[in-house]
Amino acid sequence: MARPASLPAVNLILFEPAELDAPLARTDPRAVHLLGVLRRQVGGTFDAGVVNGPRGRGTLAAVGPAALTLTFAWGPPPPAPEPVVLLVGLPRPQTARDILREATALGAGALHFFRAEKSEPGYAHSRLWSAGEWRRQLLAGAAQAFDPRLPAVTHGQTLAAVLAALPPAGTRLALDNYESPQSLAAVPVTAPAVLAFGPERGWSAAERTQLRAAGFACVHLGTRVLRAETAVIAALAILRARLGLL
Amino acid sequence: MARPASLPAVNLILFEPAELDAPLARTDPRAVHLLGVLRRQVGGTFDAGVVNGPRGRGTLAAVGPAALTLTFAWGPPPPAPEPVVLLVGLPRPQTARDILREATALGAGALHFFRAEKSEPGYAHSRLWSAGEWRRQLLAGAAQAFDPRLPAVTHGQTLAAVLAALPPAGTRLALDNYESPQSLAAVPVTAPAVLAFGPERGWSAAERTQLRAAGFACVHLGTRVLRAETAVIAALAILRARLGLL
Repeated sequence: MARPASLPAVNLILFEPAELDAPLARTDPRAVHLLGVLRRQVGGTFDAGVVNGPRGRGTLAAVGPAALTLTFAWGPPPPAPEPVVLLVGLPRPQTARDILREATALGAGALHFFRAEKSEPGYAHSRLWSAGEWRRQLLAGAAQAFDPRLPAVTHGQTLAAVLAALPPAGTRLALDNYESPQSLAAVPVTAPAVLAFGPERGWSAAERTQLRAAGFACVHLGTRVLRAETAVIAALAILRARLGLL
Repeated sequence: MARPASLPAVNLILFEPAELDAPLARTDPRAVHLLGVLRRQVGGTFDAGVVNGPRGRGTLAAVGPAALTLTFAWGPPPPAPEPVVLLVGLPRPQTARDILREATALGAGALHFFRAEKSEPGYAHSRLWSAGEWRRQLLAGAAQAFDPRLPAVTHGQTLAAVLAALPPAGTRLALDNYESPQSLAAVPVTAPAVLAFGPERGWSAAERTQLRAAGFACVHLGTRVLRAETAVIAALAILRARLGLL
């Protein structure tokens, strides 16, 4: 069943490493979910994961008046991060929420939300970024995708700073529907890859120069104009398909 | 700028054929948008489209106390429908809204929301379908994509009825993460194509048999579990890329 974006996804119940040895308060949304939605009783099991760690099976060992006691059997450590890095010009917070959650679900190794010249400056001061909500969106995407790995995330850096810190990559592409001679569907790609999206109002001339200097080729997604969150999902899916990651 | 899903998209202001010769009430959202957001004055122009007809330029010819007078210069008739048909097991209404809007924006020729065995029966009785809201989602997606063509839509038919009415297609694929030997990224595809999605709880055994009998091959999108609306965007984008439509 699909869930509203505001609720935690439930395919995989995720725990931070520091939480594993402590009882889980019955008021915690995961406890509510285990008892109320999955209807687990003592002895019942569920799919669990450690954030940036292994997947495994959890067991509801005891139900106390204030907390649950859980035990776990973990599988092997997780594979290396997904070999696709996304750069996204800071979008409005609701769009950023969708991108954080869905890019995590689709499989992005890192997400850098940079301050683009045409980004609205106020977007950097949203509660999304200051209150840690951005990380809850990653957790929701990871739980949805059944993969406890979270992408590395930065926000509010300049494009120059993000470009300077990028690891070497086989392919560097920038989505640019105005200046791209070639389609993302046709340009040669090799992993690892970096895919850059401008802000909703597009790249500036200076940013295009920076990207070219950093070895980015411009590509388009066709003539149809997409919402930013849809363009990110579509482009990441196409790139992963073309890299043989599906 | 991306817009909340509940507001009309504004890249292209769409008009029904029957509306073209009448004044536009100032209370109409399009009039509000023209005057209040685009800030057009008499003589100002804007991008316009006729639903399932041509694109062109509109001109604000006069602003009366109760209505606007618009004139239009239309371009050539629209091309043939997009050569991809989607079948989707009836999802919950909020998921259906997103699929209606985003599949239209991405470019789907037809959308058939069928009653799957594992669809919640109540989903067919949502106000989304009874009150015509479904069509407003198509209009929002078409305006966003800058393409006045709307996909043909049916809802509430059985899978058998939808399959019996399908036009001949070069490729018929069903997304099935449980029984698919091959990836959508690797299976041969030729246009026109049909892409089928089960409901959120998956295909039934009988439906898999029906699909195979109708010439569908099962494909997967990888091991990551996606929300239904994200899976539709991702798969449609990959298929269009592989068909050379981007």
